[in-house]
Amino acid sequence: MAGENIALAMFEDTESRRDPSIRWLTGQPGDALLFLSAVDRKNLLAPWDVNIAALYANADEVVPYNEFRRHPAQALPAAVTRFKIDSRGVKARVEVPQATPYPLFLQYADALKAVNCETVCRTDGAAAEAERLRAIKDEGEIKLYRKLSTITNALIDSLEKNLRDNTIKTESDAALFIEAEARKQDCEGTSFETLAAGPSRSFGIHAFPAYTAAAFGGKGLSILDFGLKYKGYASDVTMTFARDVSIDQEQQLALMKEAYDFALAMVKPGASARDIALAVDAFYAEHDKTLPHGLGHGVGLEIHEAPFLRSRSETAQILEAGMIFTIEPGVYDPEIGGCRYENDILVTDDGYEVLTNTRIARL
Amino acid sequence: MAGENIALAMFEDTESRRDPSIRWLTGQPGDALLFLSAVDRKNLLAPWDVNIAALYANADEVVPYNEFRRHPAQALPAAVTRFKIDSRGVKARVEVPQATPYPLFLQYADALKAVNCETVCRTDGAAAEAERLRAIKDEGEIKLYRKLSTITNALIDSLEKNLRDNTIKTESDAALFIEAEARKQDCEGTSFETLAAGPSRSFGIHAFPAYTAAAFGGKGLSILDFGLKYKGYASDVTMTFARDVSIDQEQQLALMKEAYDFALAMVKPGASARDIALAVDAFYAEHDKTLPHGLGHGVGLEIHEAPFLRSRSETAQILEAGMIFTIEPGVYDPEIGGCRYENDILVTDDGYEVLTNTRIARL
Repeated sequence: MAGENIALAMFEDTESRRDPSIRWLTGQPGDALLFLSAVDRKNLLAPWDVNIAALYANADEVVPYNEFRRHPAQALPAAVTRFKIDSRGVKARVEVPQATPYPLFLQYADALKAVNCETVCRTDGAAAEAERLRAIKDEGEIKLYRKLSTITNALIDSLEKNLRDNTIKTESDAALFIEAEARKQDCEGTSFETLAAGPSRSFGIHAFPAYTAAAFGGKGLSILDFGLKYKGYASDVTMTFARDVSIDQEQQLALMKEAYDFALAMVKPGASARDIALAVDAFYAEHDKTLPHGLGHGVGLEIHEAPFLRSRSETAQILEAGMIFTIEPGVYDPEIGGCRYENDILVTDDGYEVLTNTRIARL
Repeated sequence: MAGENIALAMFEDTESRRDPSIRWLTGQPGDALLFLSAVDRKNLLAPWDVNIAALYANADEVVPYNEFRRHPAQALPAAVTRFKIDSRGVKARVEVPQATPYPLFLQYADALKAVNCETVCRTDGAAAEAERLRAIKDEGEIKLYRKLSTITNALIDSLEKNLRDNTIKTESDAALFIEAEARKQDCEGTSFETLAAGPSRSFGIHAFPAYTAAAFGGKGLSILDFGLKYKGYASDVTMTFARDVSIDQEQQLALMKEAYDFALAMVKPGASARDIALAVDAFYAEHDKTLPHGLGHGVGLEIHEAPFLRSRSETAQILEAGMIFTIEPGVYDPEIGGCRYENDILVTDDGYEVLTNTRIARL
C-alpha cells in the first residue's frame, strides 16, 4: 500500500462479493467492510452483525455497518474522516476491492471526490496481495490442514464402507451422510454443496441438481465431489465409484488416473501452475480428449483460490512451499458417464505431499 | 435495448457473479454466458458444461464456452463477429453486466475497441431489466409457487411435530431433516444453507456456523430460517421455537409479531416497498429497538431479488400484483436471544396472499 501511495484500502465481504480475507485478517466470519490505513497502520471493521463480531472479531475499531447505512459509498468518506486521512494538498488515494462493479466504482469515486480523495481499483491491489499471501499457508494453517485431512480421509473410508454394505443407496444418502459427519467432527459444515452423481448423471462436470434421490453407486461410474470446512478452511476431494464397468469405462478411468499421476509428478517449488495444466492438456489431446475444466485450484478460506492450475491463466503462478491445491482431472462422456479424481496437495520444500486419500472405489 | 441503441447484450453466470436470468431466459441452470442481439433478436449461449446444456438449454445457438477459452473478453469480440454486428460507421454499443468488476470492464472495453465497438455497463441495462421482469411472476410461476409453498408448509408442520416429540434434538437434526425432505419432495435442494440457531446462538441475525451439533428447541428462543428450491425457484421462511420463555422473551416475541402484522397490512399494489420498511423502522424506534437487517426481499430464481423492502433503498420500488417477497422482522438480544418471523407473500390485485404458514411454535 505504501509503495503505491495508497492511504486507505477497503475490503468488502458481502453476499454477492465474498472476500474471506476479512476473516483471515480479523476473525470476522462474514458480511463486513474492513478498512486498513497505511498512515497509522490501524484497521476499522464495520460488521453487519455486531453480536457475531463481538464473539469473533479482533480489530482496532469496530463500528456497526448500520452506522454507515450499510453502504460502502457512505462508509468510504466516513472512514477517510475517521482515519484523518490528509487530503488537503495532493489528493489521497483510496483503494476499493477489485471485485467492485463498474457502476458502483463510479459511485465510490463520486463519494470520495467529495472528501478530495482519488479512487483506485486494480487487480494488483491490497485484496490481491492478501490473496497472494493467503495462498502460502503458514505452520499453523498447515497443522490445521493435517487435522482437516484426517477428518476428510476418515470420511472417505466411511463412505466406501457404507457404499459397500449398502447403507448408502442414493445420492441423497451420500450427501446427507457427509453433512451429518461434518458437524459431528466439529467442522463448520461442508465447503460447498456436495456433488453426488450416480451413473445416470455422472456425465456432467457438476451434476445438476447437486444431488437427488437417484441411485448412487450402481452399475457404471458414480462421482462424489465433496469437501469439509474446518475453522474456515476448506478441503476438496472427489471419489469415483466404479461397479461392473465396461472396457470403455475402464479405459476412461485409467486415462484419468494417468493424467493425475502425470500432473502430480510435476509438483515442486518453482514449477509453473499454468505449465502443469498445459502439459496435462497436451496429454489429453494425445488421447483425443479434452479436459473441460481447470486442472486444479488452491484451497484455503475459499474453496477456489490461488494458485490456479489452468492453461488459460494469463499469468504464470509459480508454486511455492506451503501452497495447498487440488489436482482433479476428469473425463466425461454423455454415453458411458464420467469420472474424476481429486486430492489436496501440499507443496513441500522439495516436492509435494498428498494430504487426502481419495480413491477409485471398486464396488 | 433498442431504445438505448444497444446492439448486443451479454449476460454472465459464473461462480463469483451469479445471474439466474440466463436460466430464466434459456433454461440453462448455471455457468454460462448468454448474448442477446437486438439486431436479429437471436441469442447465443456459451455453456461451461455442454452435456448439461444439451439436457436443459434452449437457445438459437449453443457454442461451448471452451471455444472462447472460458473468458468473456474472448467471447465478446467473437460474438460481435458471429452476430455480424455492423460497426463500420457509428460504433456499435455492446452492453456488459452491471456486476462486471471495474478492472474487467477495462479489459472488455479494450477487447471491444478492437472490433470498433463501445462498451456499456450501467445499472439500468438489460440485466436490470430482466431482474425487473422477473420480479413480477406470471401465471405459471405463481402456480409453481403454490406447489412450492405446499411443500414448504408440510415441512413446517413436520418440523414442529418432530420438535415436539423430540425426534429433532439438535440444530443439525433440524437442518438435515430439511435437506432430506427437500429431495424426497423433488426439490432441487434447499435455497440456502439452513440457519438453525438454538437458544445459545439465536442472538445472531445469521447464526455462525449456520448449524452445529448444539441443542435446538430447548428453554428459550430458537430460530430456524430455511427455504426450498423447486424447479429453480426459492421459498424462504423463518420459524421461531419458544420454550419456557421469560417475560422479556415473551415481550420480544410480541413486538416482532406486531411489526410483522403492521408491515403485512400495508401490502397492496401501488405501495412503496421502501415506505413499508421505513414505517417498520419507525415502529421499532418507538419501542427503542432497531431492525438490524432488511424487512424483506423478493424471492424467485434468486433467494434475494427485487423487490427489496428496505429503508436504505435509493429508489422506491412500487409493489405490483404478481410480486412475491418475504416479510421478516426480527429482534436480537445478546442476553436473552433472538427471534424472527418470515413468510412469503404474494401481491394480489387488491392486496396480498400469505403463501407460507410459518409460526412461533410453543414447545
